[in-house]
Amino acid sequence: MDVYSTLTRSKEDFVTINKNRVNLFVCGPTVYDDAHIGHGRTYISFDTIKRYLEFKGYAVFYIQNITDIDDKIINRSKESGIPAQELARKFEKRYIEDMNKLNVNGVNLFARATDHVDEILDQIQRLIDKGFAYETEDGVYFEIDKFPEFGKLSNRNVEELESHRDIAETTKKNPQDFALWKKRVGVDEPTWPSPWGDGRPGWHIEDTAITEYYFGPQYDAHGGGLDLIFPHHEAEITQMEAVSGKAPMVKFWLHTGFLNVNGEKMSKSLNNFITIRDLLKDYAAETFRFFVLSTHYRSPIDFSKDSLHQSEKSLDRIRKYYELLDVSVGEDSFECEALAPHKKEFFDSMDDDFNTPKAIAAIFGLINDTKNDLDSFSDEDKIAIKAFLDDVAHILGVSFETEEVSAGSDDLLDLISEVRSELRANKQYDLSDKIRSDLQSLGYEIND
Amino acid sequence: MDVYSTLTRSKEDFVTINKNRVNLFVCGPTVYDDAHIGHGRTYISFDTIKRYLEFKGYAVFYIQNITDIDDKIINRSKESGIPAQELARKFEKRYIEDMNKLNVNGVNLFARATDHVDEILDQIQRLIDKGFAYETEDGVYFEIDKFPEFGKLSNRNVEELESHRDIAETTKKNPQDFALWKKRVGVDEPTWPSPWGDGRPGWHIEDTAITEYYFGPQYDAHGGGLDLIFPHHEAEITQMEAVSGKAPMVKFWLHTGFLNVNGEKMSKSLNNFITIRDLLKDYAAETFRFFVLSTHYRSPIDFSKDSLHQSEKSLDRIRKYYELLDVSVGEDSFECEALAPHKKEFFDSMDDDFNTPKAIAAIFGLINDTKNDLDSFSDEDKIAIKAFLDDVAHILGVSFETEEVSAGSDDLLDLISEVRSELRANKQYDLSDKIRSDLQSLGYEIND
Repeated sequence: MDVYSTLTRSKEDFVTINKNRVNLFVCGPTVYDDAHIGHGRTYISFDTIKRYLEFKGYAVFYIQNITDIDDKIINRSKESGIPAQELARKFEKRYIEDMNKLNVNGVNLFARATDHVDEILDQIQRLIDKGFAYETEDGVYFEIDKFPEFGKLSNRNVEELESHRDIAETTKKNPQDFALWKKRVGVDEPTWPSPWGDGRPGWHIEDTAITEYYFGPQYDAHGGGLDLIFPHHEAEITQMEAVSGKAPMVKFWLHTGFLNVNGEKMSKSLNNFITIRDLLKDYAAETFRFFVLSTHYRSPIDFSKDSLHQSEKSLDRIRKYYELLDVSVGEDSFECEALAPHKKEFFDSMDDDFNTPKAIAAIFGLINDTKNDLDSFSDEDKIAIKAFLDDVAHILGVSFETEEVSAGSDDLLDLISEVRSELRANKQYDLSDKIRSDLQSLGYEIND
Repeated sequence: MDVYSTLTRSKEDFVTINKNRVNLFVCGPTVYDDAHIGHGRTYISFDTIKRYLEFKGYAVFYIQNITDIDDKIINRSKESGIPAQELARKFEKRYIEDMNKLNVNGVNLFARATDHVDEILDQIQRLIDKGFAYETEDGVYFEIDKFPEFGKLSNRNVEELESHRDIAETTKKNPQDFALWKKRVGVDEPTWPSPWGDGRPGWHIEDTAITEYYFGPQYDAHGGGLDLIFPHHEAEITQMEAVSGKAPMVKFWLHTGFLNVNGEKMSKSLNNFITIRDLLKDYAAETFRFFVLSTHYRSPIDFSKDSLHQSEKSLDRIRKYYELLDVSVGEDSFECEALAPHKKEFFDSMDDDFNTPKAIAAIFGLINDTKNDLDSFSDEDKIAIKAFLDDVAHILGVSFETEEVSAGSDDLLDLISEVRSELRANKQYDLSDKIRSDLQSLGYEIND
């Protein structure tokens, strides 16, 4: 299996540190507001990657951090009057609810920053002891001049960075030095005691403190949105490799591409900002999931009504085909000649840096090749195809089962049909036609 | 909060090693067959304990091991002709499906024994190096004479143990010595290479290898069924404290009581063996969950149709009451005087070694006290009660929402009523009466 790593800008054979075990870390949300569809895209991608790794036999330990202390949270807390911790817990809960609705349920451990302050303090202390960090009047900073490899993930060098936004912070030796610990500024912000006075962690340090604690100084794969490469992931590498002296911290850096809305960047100011909660008022979670997976996770993706509608139709097409497979998958497994090339194509595509759009195309290849002769297929052949599609559904995290009208509705429909037949027999066409048209408007078709 | 520990035979203040973090390990299943209702009882209990700890603000990291190599698996594999690994994966999958159906979804990491062979070999080697273990022709054994504290969890001493089943294994120095590594016996059993020849781990060592790797040599809480205290948990303590020199490995040992069926031990030979899958054909998962929580987790529990029926009625009673709370819980929180004593009783009970039956009794206290005057309660009061019941439902892992007739059925019902009114207006009573009686037999009541 080949996986592209941002670190080497190339696909590499997926060799893990410890045989079939994979330690995976993905940057989780800052919980100050509801998650938006860009978050949805990222976390659906990594959920699917984890599903595929597990399908291949890997035991994956997937951690997400929860940034529950941060400028954004403090500001939102001041605006809303809700204490910062309460605000963070509220949006953490809503985040996990949203993810469950998207069938994103593969995270093994959500690790909050504020639950790991001890590990953060310990890592900062070791960075100071080793001469990589220094204290000023307003915080503790990593001195990037001490770590010449700074920039190796993002391919930026320090000179290029002179215009970086941190330049205003004047207590630093170098504008690119980044905060490990921020000393208290206001009286109403949450703080923790530290050897450098009350304060709170910088943003980057929570991730490496958490991953060092659970995974050690080196682990297999790190994921996140493309926008986090610089400075966030660069800073993570810098902190961890400086403190441990071991490199690489992570071999496989997986980054999801941007999500646009109708060709434009999603932003509150453009009034095209869509939360997952808003999305799910209009679309089925599985439609969005299928839409996300119809583009490669590293590519940009454009959200539009049309493309969602297209995904709905594609899913429907698979479901209609699946319904034709009128067999039950049991304990026995079978091979099917007509399936073989498409199955191979599916798994070859997934093995090629989790190429879900190509893998999905293989499903449509299968449908196009077999749909018209399915009647002539043996039960064994159909079982083989159905079992394969069950695996595909599990990997993609969607269902190909057609939603059945609930039993209660079935019984009511039978009763209505019976009444209608009787009315027609009595030549009461007014009432029987009313039933037909009402049923049609409810989405039920009547064939006399 | 007080929690009873089997180690001290007393309730202790729940003081954790690292502030609000809890490392919890519970012995998972040996995956050679479907899980039964006794497993259901144990895992529902620990799922609820985790839910309550999280509700109290603890960040819980909950690991379960999966024993996927074992005599039982090897024997079942030989009987069925399914390779041992395939068999284990199949029943692991079914186990996790069963747990999800019971709304048992709190395990952060399922750690398979066979994924941790390196850690197992490493721990055995350290036990040998420290003089606690020795090799014989058929395996590596822990020498219990070297660890005088053996027996401190189960309160047994070595003399009492002379009759223990292991006595037949004659390569051991002492009959109570237990296997850390079992050398290959048959050609068709799965083995791993080791410094002591090909073989497989003993049962006890996987747990301590896994917990040492993820938690370190000491952690907060260990759970499992009462039947595992001896020899399994005793052996865990012995291995871990011998290798680390640190005690206690775990302060809080939580053991669930036995589950009987109609007063008898459940066993295949008595023909009263009930898998979770069988159970769920006849009962709602929530009914079983509520039944389990109606007894304290440490007490024996007797499964019978009557008690399940009783649980169903109790849940119904709460749901009917909940339905009377015709308000929506929003962002604001309120206090309600009539609720206060019952709410306190609920949380005091949960704080007293997770006493769920007493906590549930507090809910019925609330219902009895308030149900008749609920009409006179302010909306704020009702919101306070409803928000409390929402918390209770979340902690117990059940829902108090009454299942609504689906929207589709509602529309069909409207149509049928309309048709029936028209028929009655036309004095077509035969047909309108038929509709009424058919609807009644479907469970719908018509009030003209």
